[in-house]
Amino acid sequence: MFQDSTTEEIDLFMAEAWQAFHVYRKQSLKQRADFMRAIAAELKTNEVVLMQTAARETNLPPARLKTEINRTIFQLNDYARFCESGQWLDIRIDTANADVVPARPDIRKTLVPLGPVVVFGAANFPFAYSTAGGDTACALAAGCPVIVKAHPGHAETSQLVADAITTAANNCFMPKGIFTHIHGASSKVGEALVKHPYTKAVGFTGSFAGGKQLFDWGNQRAVPIPVFAEMSSVNPVFLLPEKITADHESIAQQYAASITLNSGQFCTNPGIIIGIGNDVLDLFVNKLSAEIKNIVPETMLHAGIYKNYVEKRAAALSQPGVEQVAVSATDAALNQGSPTIAMVKAQDFLANPLLQHEVFGPYSIIVRCADMNEMIAVANYLEGQLTVTLMGTENDIKQHTELVDILRNICGRFILNGVPTGVAVGLPMQHGGPFPATTDSRFTSVGADGIKRFARPVAYQNWSDELLPDELKDSNPLKIWRTVNNELKC
Amino acid sequence: MFQDSTTEEIDLFMAEAWQAFHVYRKQSLKQRADFMRAIAAELKTNEVVLMQTAARETNLPPARLKTEINRTIFQLNDYARFCESGQWLDIRIDTANADVVPARPDIRKTLVPLGPVVVFGAANFPFAYSTAGGDTACALAAGCPVIVKAHPGHAETSQLVADAITTAANNCFMPKGIFTHIHGASSKVGEALVKHPYTKAVGFTGSFAGGKQLFDWGNQRAVPIPVFAEMSSVNPVFLLPEKITADHESIAQQYAASITLNSGQFCTNPGIIIGIGNDVLDLFVNKLSAEIKNIVPETMLHAGIYKNYVEKRAAALSQPGVEQVAVSATDAALNQGSPTIAMVKAQDFLANPLLQHEVFGPYSIIVRCADMNEMIAVANYLEGQLTVTLMGTENDIKQHTELVDILRNICGRFILNGVPTGVAVGLPMQHGGPFPATTDSRFTSVGADGIKRFARPVAYQNWSDELLPDELKDSNPLKIWRTVNNELKC
Repeated sequence: MFQDSTTEEIDLFMAEAWQAFHVYRKQSLKQRADFMRAIAAELKTNEVVLMQTAARETNLPPARLKTEINRTIFQLNDYARFCESGQWLDIRIDTANADVVPARPDIRKTLVPLGPVVVFGAANFPFAYSTAGGDTACALAAGCPVIVKAHPGHAETSQLVADAITTAANNCFMPKGIFTHIHGASSKVGEALVKHPYTKAVGFTGSFAGGKQLFDWGNQRAVPIPVFAEMSSVNPVFLLPEKITADHESIAQQYAASITLNSGQFCTNPGIIIGIGNDVLDLFVNKLSAEIKNIVPETMLHAGIYKNYVEKRAAALSQPGVEQVAVSATDAALNQGSPTIAMVKAQDFLANPLLQHEVFGPYSIIVRCADMNEMIAVANYLEGQLTVTLMGTENDIKQHTELVDILRNICGRFILNGVPTGVAVGLPMQHGGPFPATTDSRFTSVGADGIKRFARPVAYQNWSDELLPDELKDSNPLKIWRTVNNELKC
Repeated sequence: MFQDSTTEEIDLFMAEAWQAFHVYRKQSLKQRADFMRAIAAELKTNEVVLMQTAARETNLPPARLKTEINRTIFQLNDYARFCESGQWLDIRIDTANADVVPARPDIRKTLVPLGPVVVFGAANFPFAYSTAGGDTACALAAGCPVIVKAHPGHAETSQLVADAITTAANNCFMPKGIFTHIHGASSKVGEALVKHPYTKAVGFTGSFAGGKQLFDWGNQRAVPIPVFAEMSSVNPVFLLPEKITADHESIAQQYAASITLNSGQFCTNPGIIIGIGNDVLDLFVNKLSAEIKNIVPETMLHAGIYKNYVEKRAAALSQPGVEQVAVSATDAALNQGSPTIAMVKAQDFLANPLLQHEVFGPYSIIVRCADMNEMIAVANYLEGQLTVTLMGTENDIKQHTELVDILRNICGRFILNGVPTGVAVGLPMQHGGPFPATTDSRFTSVGADGIKRFARPVAYQNWSDELLPDELKDSNPLKIWRTVNNELKC
């Protein structure tokens, strides 16, 4: 269908992106924002064919795809607004002062773009984390040209979105090379892109194996580059005693839905549920099992993801001490992921690293602790996560501060009485946690603060007002809140 | 004198640091700031003995050491002020909204510390970039315990500073393990520290070889960690036509002083001066040469740095097309670095990567370009830098926008009509540039924004006001400027 790009083509595309960088980085924040809004408008114009194509390629239901297109459009518009506000530039100005020792020169700091950014489309989000998704929006807002490698699982959808971006780029008189779309079923294409000298940063959402490989390539270059990979998270959920006693039924219902939403194909899927083994937990498990049995299997994104689910689930279920406690009562057809709940004692969980590896799909394992001490041992044992959820009353939280403190330290988003699926797009979102959840916990890939992954500070020293960029001029023509001589002002 | 720490000792120290982390990260911003101010006060109390010891170990002149202690004290107090202000936490709050689709939960983002930070003392800054220096101050402000590996070139000074920090820690009732001081002449000690599972970040200022090694160790861990290494920069200075014609004498005087300040042992030493070869450049070179001949060699930091200077300088001077145009008229005694100016045609410079490697000491090479096109070629050829300086009139800058744009893209600090030596400590400072200047151009190691190297965001979702940390509570008890529902408020 689509041919992989050759090394020669990639060299040409990257040279064009590099040329475009020199033009685009000098455009105003408004020009960048207008371009992003034009992309959003093109997606809206083409949404019917985009949804039809994505439905065929990914098996995702129409309602979900509609929500995802809306989210993608929202992201582009919201990040455009934040880009244009200039607030993210974190302007710091110290005016000259000859009366201090040592005398202080005039210094003014802003952010400049890193350069061309390579974005890898995600299998599970054909719109919001692919071609015109969050990484692309952040890079364009930062002032960086973007090179997208289409996910082969939805290459046609990706091509259609790329065409929409190209139309928007032409309408906005963007330089050639501002956006490039590359197909590549082979990992050689990704390797060539990450290792190319003109590539200055990488954004990725996907598997641990894939993300870690890109991270290593990025670091092993003669000139290393930042690779932000959002990879692997099992999003543990801790059931605290008072809360589970009060609400075991509703929690079971809530989690049956969260675990199986879109066949569990979310990076925030709750993959591990930790409780203290007693009668109340048994009631919770029974209710969850009853719910899961009633949930009909759905077709997964593509055959590779289905195969991976079946194999990983089988591997987990075959580990010592692991029992399957519930599976959908409806037989799964080919490529359908059967909702499944497993259970294991904490002592077996703690002895077996495989059990905290992600099983991507509608699967979750309940870890049964003997007591709170064992629950704390599990918390201490867990790897870095995108999210941790506590199901607890105010009293639970106040009584178990040690547990709460440990858990805050391993996650990017810390949820009280909710489910981790459903990632709100907004400035306060942190979608990024300690490794292996991501490769750099200091950044987010959701929310407009994700722009900062692709920009770096430059301090202007002793420049005259006329020669400074607008955001640094004395008159503050962009009306940005700025820190001037240590005081925030607008 | 001092024994290298053994692996067993390092394990013990790191376990103590890890324990301290769990206590310290819960302390208030004020407690952190008070601790930092107490360290500053201890340095002030001990400044005479500190200066005497450092003078003996480093050969740096008393006036310089006095300035450096003052700067170190200023950094601790200034970063403490910024820490306490809470401004660096970049608080973002979206309150719940059931009226939007999808419904928005209450989400509030703050920063939390990464964990124990290992800091490597710098050879050339026994105070400001060593034991109680910028990296230590930033890590403590972020909420991280610190483990310092003393630079063996000033191990006694480092020990005295460590004792001062320990006194301050005791006076502030800090947990055991909040600060650890380790000696290690062997690289094995550094390797054990960077690879230790409880180490969560690294700060380093020094050579390219040293910094790159730490960066690689950090990335090769099972759980990679951020290594901020400030390494290698030649801080190019571009002489633009109108300016050099008008001011060649004063520029030569200014640069003779900057190149040889403290025997050129600054990471911001101007190592390359680029001009267009004509009569005016000859006048500049003659004046610079006359100045350099009159500058008396100074003893360098230690024998290793002296040996390195002699070897690197000899290697540079022996390259094809390189001529020595000036050297101090005073014979250098053992361990004294002789101020030296070399010159090379741009075409030879462009053909020889060795010539843009740092020669750490009182040395600079003039690159003589045939015309502005060749100057642009040199700009395009240069690696990443901490600083780039333009010597130019307003007219020069406006006429040579292509050159200006290229240069802004390769540096962290962009100076107009000044010298790169002298790094003002303040919020607008950016001391960090594209590789190989540093390992991550998105951060700074000077100025209070350097705190952000050692912290990461956490988003609280759906927590009640009572359970939230102070900086996120509705009532804003810390009186921080926060972005609430996309609007900045206090």
